Amino acid sequence: MKPDLSRPQLKIRRVHLDTGRENVIVISRQSTALRADIFRGFSRVELRSDSRTLLATLLITDDNALVGPDEIGLSEPAFRRFAQPAGSLVTVTPASAPESMEAVRAKIRGQTLSRAEIGAVIDDLAHYRYSDMEIAAFLIGSASFITSDELLALTGAMAEAGTQLKWPEQIVVDKHCIGGIPGNRTSMIVVPIVAAHGLTIPKTSSRAITSPAGTADTMEVLARVNIGVEEMKTIVAACNGCLIWGGHVNLSPADDILISVERPLSLDTREQMVASIMSKKIAAGSTHLLIDIPVGPTAKVTKATDAMRLRKLFEFVGDRFGRTVEVITTDGSEPIGNGIGPVLEANDVMAVLGNEPEAPRDLREKSLRLAAHLLDYDPKLRGGTGYARARELLESGAALKQMQKIIDAQGPSKCATELGHLSFDVKASRDGVVSAIDCLRLNRLARTAGAPLDKGAGIRLFKKIGDRVEQGEPLYRVYTFDQPEHDLAAGATAADNGYAINGHEASQSKTVS
Amino acid sequence: MKPDLSRPQLKIRRVHLDTGRENVIVISRQSTALRADIFRGFSRVELRSDSRTLLATLLITDDNALVGPDEIGLSEPAFRRFAQPAGSLVTVTPASAPESMEAVRAKIRGQTLSRAEIGAVIDDLAHYRYSDMEIAAFLIGSASFITSDELLALTGAMAEAGTQLKWPEQIVVDKHCIGGIPGNRTSMIVVPIVAAHGLTIPKTSSRAITSPAGTADTMEVLARVNIGVEEMKTIVAACNGCLIWGGHVNLSPADDILISVERPLSLDTREQMVASIMSKKIAAGSTHLLIDIPVGPTAKVTKATDAMRLRKLFEFVGDRFGRTVEVITTDGSEPIGNGIGPVLEANDVMAVLGNEPEAPRDLREKSLRLAAHLLDYDPKLRGGTGYARARELLESGAALKQMQKIIDAQGPSKCATELGHLSFDVKASRDGVVSAIDCLRLNRLARTAGAPLDKGAGIRLFKKIGDRVEQGEPLYRVYTFDQPEHDLAAGATAADNGYAINGHEASQSKTVS
Repeated sequence: MKPDLSRPQLKIRRVHLDTGRENVIVISRQSTALRADIFRGFSRVELRSDSRTLLATLLITDDNALVGPDEIGLSEPAFRRFAQPAGSLVTVTPASAPESMEAVRAKIRGQTLSRAEIGAVIDDLAHYRYSDMEIAAFLIGSASFITSDELLALTGAMAEAGTQLKWPEQIVVDKHCIGGIPGNRTSMIVVPIVAAHGLTIPKTSSRAITSPAGTADTMEVLARVNIGVEEMKTIVAACNGCLIWGGHVNLSPADDILISVERPLSLDTREQMVASIMSKKIAAGSTHLLIDIPVGPTAKVTKATDAMRLRKLFEFVGDRFGRTVEVITTDGSEPIGNGIGPVLEANDVMAVLGNEPEAPRDLREKSLRLAAHLLDYDPKLRGGTGYARARELLESGAALKQMQKIIDAQGPSKCATELGHLSFDVKASRDGVVSAIDCLRLNRLARTAGAPLDKGAGIRLFKKIGDRVEQGEPLYRVYTFDQPEHDLAAGATAADNGYAINGHEASQSKTVS
Repeated sequence: MKPDLSRPQLKIRRVHLDTGRENVIVISRQSTALRADIFRGFSRVELRSDSRTLLATLLITDDNALVGPDEIGLSEPAFRRFAQPAGSLVTVTPASAPESMEAVRAKIRGQTLSRAEIGAVIDDLAHYRYSDMEIAAFLIGSASFITSDELLALTGAMAEAGTQLKWPEQIVVDKHCIGGIPGNRTSMIVVPIVAAHGLTIPKTSSRAITSPAGTADTMEVLARVNIGVEEMKTIVAACNGCLIWGGHVNLSPADDILISVERPLSLDTREQMVASIMSKKIAAGSTHLLIDIPVGPTAKVTKATDAMRLRKLFEFVGDRFGRTVEVITTDGSEPIGNGIGPVLEANDVMAVLGNEPEAPRDLREKSLRLAAHLLDYDPKLRGGTGYARARELLESGAALKQMQKIIDAQGPSKCATELGHLSFDVKASRDGVVSAIDCLRLNRLARTAGAPLDKGAGIRLFKKIGDRVEQGEPLYRVYTFDQPEHDLAAGATAADNGYAINGHEASQSKTVS
């Protein structure tokens, strides 16, 4: 149906509602222009001005103070995206689903989609034309099967939907971990080592969504991370690398939208994970990419065979897009480093970079190993000397100096960085050797304690797998800022503290210090 | 995680936002109790008072006049369902998905669900615990395959989720058409015939969602249809039947919710259609059910083999639930009757009941045929005499009298019932014989003209398939109330008027009368 410009028009009013990703508009039930009866609350509508259109979800109000009969209220994201001044005139009509939904329905029926069809879906997604349920339909339709060609088309379309970075250097390296392991803040050590060597490593990271800290949250303890594309380029030109939040760079916006629906539905599939990661790295202009897949009983990947299948997918997509992709599996049986939560993890990182004796050895070793892989991409370096070079850069203090340079370039953070002042220790209930640590449980516990919102909330581990403990000896300390979080966290550890000793998982006695 | 009652509480405020099916709540970005940063707009939250919990979608506001920092705004449906007074205290926590979503994810992975799992999903659905995207996940997960046992479990769980009607009579008949054919208002003729005979036929109908009129919309031209369970029972006791809207009776509320997501996604599957219809009829207490499946090139079912598969599914479910189900396929190649739109269809119905000479013969014949099937369920009637009995009841005026009794019992409607005063005729572009009529196109056209909101908007057909026409002779007349609808409808018919003459689909010249 053609746009119905003969209908009476409504005046735009900005309504201070933050509706997240969704475009939401509000109209009066008395609105004659709209004839609200034929719309229902939460139905989809199309806004149209002379120059712009927008798909949105409709709320109907009986409160004339909020939106009058001749007005249309645009929530914050809708107002921002429609980009027309308050008071300007628009028409509203019931919206049909975007045309590309036909392809989604075909996918649900079991058909294979063409490159053009996938491109249209991703374009509509990236332009906020899909409702939550339409996004879910695409994700679930693609979850049952996706062909190699579809995977390539999906990755390519997502990479092209947002910012595409270009770098003057021939070699641009990057690393990515599929996540799930507490601590494990290797990027913040790998980037300064590699940058100190002279390779370009423009690292963008995510913030925590379901974990207690993302690399962006942890880096923010040390420096500003909300940095846009132009400033990023200046920093990388000066420092060879950066450690910033990806959110302001807008790489693969369609992926961000898919993730926002995938996460609440817990719908991670292998193919979607690969398309998500590779689209971001391709858009970021990386030429050489190292993927870290931790494998362990409470990691995202629990079996070596699954890690192998995932590796093949990464390699396949990397090859087709002309990128060098190397995939390594690492030990994902327990947290890496001692801290869990932004401030505690930042402390670990700076201890490793400062070559302090109490720095966690596992975090140091893993970071050196990853940095070695990346350094070996440098044609000027003799084959197999990457590890020695990485260690040299770390032990000489060159990496620390480079990190300080990056921190200075990104500028000071405004975050509070003190540690939570309420804490309690969780103690061993028996003598023995620590035989397992539950990564999922510790992630949840650190979030209960307040991370990542409270930067200084989290967990400091005293014991790792293989360590001998005596009954009553502290296993870890939990830091919080407020009594409610403290009590909740204490309750959670009383139920299950996440540690097994001599193979026994046990509820532990705890003492508030 | 346990409910966090140690958090500060918020005061309930009613916010005049109609958010349809969805529970929506609004909180202030300044709310200390909530720590809004860890929530995002459109994320799911759980409200908790001493006695109640509610899952809702979150909006965040910067407008203290709408919701203050110590308040929580409940949209109309959330306020109604939470059922706690304004000013009372609640806590808000991030909500995890309902536990039954684990079964939905299993279904997406290709597993078969148990009766208990399906029951839990339907229970959560019926209690508004699923978000739109979670509903979509269930629908799409079930769309790829559903076993016979799953279909039975789904039907049973949906039937048990709402009102379950019981009738004193041993035989309670009902009819249902799967829809898609314009006009086709047989229920309004079948019910008075069957009720006049003395069988019980408590008919609930739907309103139009995507069509220009549902039976409830058309009946509303003649009588009130917004009638609850108790009043329905009184009417049926007095008249043997009724013709009311199902919306106030709350049969199969989970189905209503599924449909509200299925429709915008255009996700009709055979199994979901059968579960939907049968759950409502089982809940309605029907013992004998006649299902009408129109088959035609522009009907919902286009092939006899598809109709057959659908028939088998209806019979299978009916048998397992101990209901007599008869499925007939009917001619769905063109509209039934001459009117499309509530007032025009009501005129057709009353003309048939009144035995008026100009009454549409196809509507009369089809209604008699359906009524005959239902009358044949009466053990007191000699086998094969149903049709003669139906015709006798119609021609004697007994059916009309029964209809008047039902109309009087349901009470007068407040709807405007005049015909649209702006009209234009669509004329034949050539001499010949009408060879096809596009049901989809005429449904859309009648909606463009204003139906079902404008009861008197719609289409009156002058010619049906097989009729001879001369060039310039009117094929049908379109009725509207306002110039915009008139112009839009005229534009639509100019592009394609939905008629083929001698096999030629052609754009027609039109004249505004």
